[in-house]
Amino acid sequence: MPFSNYNFSIITTKHEMMVDITNEIEKIIAKENEQISLNGICHISIPHTTAGVTINENADKDVKSDFMSILTDLIPQKQTFLHVEGNSDAHVKASLMGFHQQIIILNGKLQLGLWQGVMFCEFDGPRTRNIQVSIWTEA
Amino acid sequence: MPFSNYNFSIITTKHEMMVDITNEIEKIIAKENEQISLNGICHISIPHTTAGVTINENADKDVKSDFMSILTDLIPQKQTFLHVEGNSDAHVKASLMGFHQQIIILNGKLQLGLWQGVMFCEFDGPRTRNIQVSIWTEA
Amino acid sequence: MPFSNYNFSIITTKHEMMVDITNEIEKIIAKENEQISLNGICHISIPHTTAGVTINENADKDVKSDFMSILTDLIPQKQTFLHVEGNSDAHVKASLMGFHQQIIILNGKLQLGLWQGVMFCEFDGPRTRNIQVSIWTEA
Repeated sequence: MPFSNYNFSIITTKHEMMVDITNEIEKIIAKENEQISLNGICHISIPHTTAGVTINENADKDVKSDFMSILTDLIPQKQTFLHVEGNSDAHVKASLMGFHQQIIILNGKLQLGLWQGVMFCEFDGPRTRNIQVSIWTEA
Repeated sequence: MPFSNYNFSIITTKHEMMVDITNEIEKIIAKENEQISLNGICHISIPHTTAGVTINENADKDVKSDFMSILTDLIPQKQTFLHVEGNSDAHVKASLMGFHQQIIILNGKLQLGLWQGVMFCEFDGPRTRNIQVSIWTEA
Repeated sequence: MPFSNYNFSIITTKHEMMVDITNEIEKIIAKENEQISLNGICHISIPHTTAGVTINENADKDVKSDFMSILTDLIPQKQTFLHVEGNSDAHVKASLMGFHQQIIILNGKLQLGLWQGVMFCEFDGPRTRNIQVSIWTEA
């Protein structure tokens, strides 16, 4: 099972926001696919603790706004946090989304549902953030 | 590392409900296992954005009821959502559960804990929903 | 794709707590790495339904305290749960964190971010808990 590793970074522009990174990941797979017709798995991971990654709707952009509002209302930043950086809410929200997603690749295509996109979730921006993509192919 | 892909669908009967899909997944593995004694990984993914998949107790069915009540109370549907479909709560709840689970297979058996079952989570039903199961075996 | 399986257990000392298990996992990988220079994936799974595993900051221990307080406030134990064991809150909190994490291994090193540690999350302790670690290596 050979595998390849890629990295890219994005710059988030707000304190909390969802960024659709599906295109970036599909470009990486297309590049890899020139060499071999891919069947495999795409592992996307986030090496941070106040940003995560999920999958969700990428058709109506209002889903992203509602999504982030719901999470902000659910877990607001509080003065009473012990953590000196004061961003413990961001640590929890990132864990709720998770730090990796794995998506099957068949014939070089990410097996996402019709409405699914891969969404980077910033909870303590704006910042430059890294995204790691590993592709595992059938031997 | 050869891998096989399977699909099945379920019909959910309520707006929000958990459905134990462990048996369906074990049947797929048993079928695959006739050919080779499996060591590998079972990847279960949900191609939707308002339904997810988690693992939880399948012994006392009251866990499912309490579980869904807690999530409904935590993130209720609201009139103020921007998203025209009005189901942004379902999008968040699905992301909180996640869209994939991976479970180790040893000697043809899913390595679930004694009380663990694989639980499909409907947050915007009733609907027909798809479940994708990929099995990766040791070469 | 050969793979190896390991288990270890920990004893949690509080009803709710986060335990950093990064060192235990790195020791397993170091042992495996004596034989071959590892490129692969490390799959950590928790065979319980009231404890989970996440990734989060392991530098400032106050993050753990704030993190668990936020979750306890968000989903308190209630007298109205139907589940006879009365710990449905723990079942939901475990699902929110998730029951597995997968981390890429390159040249024998877990690809965690600078501030990331692997955190076992107890929501219904104190108890003895098991952690399963599977390592999949490039053929």
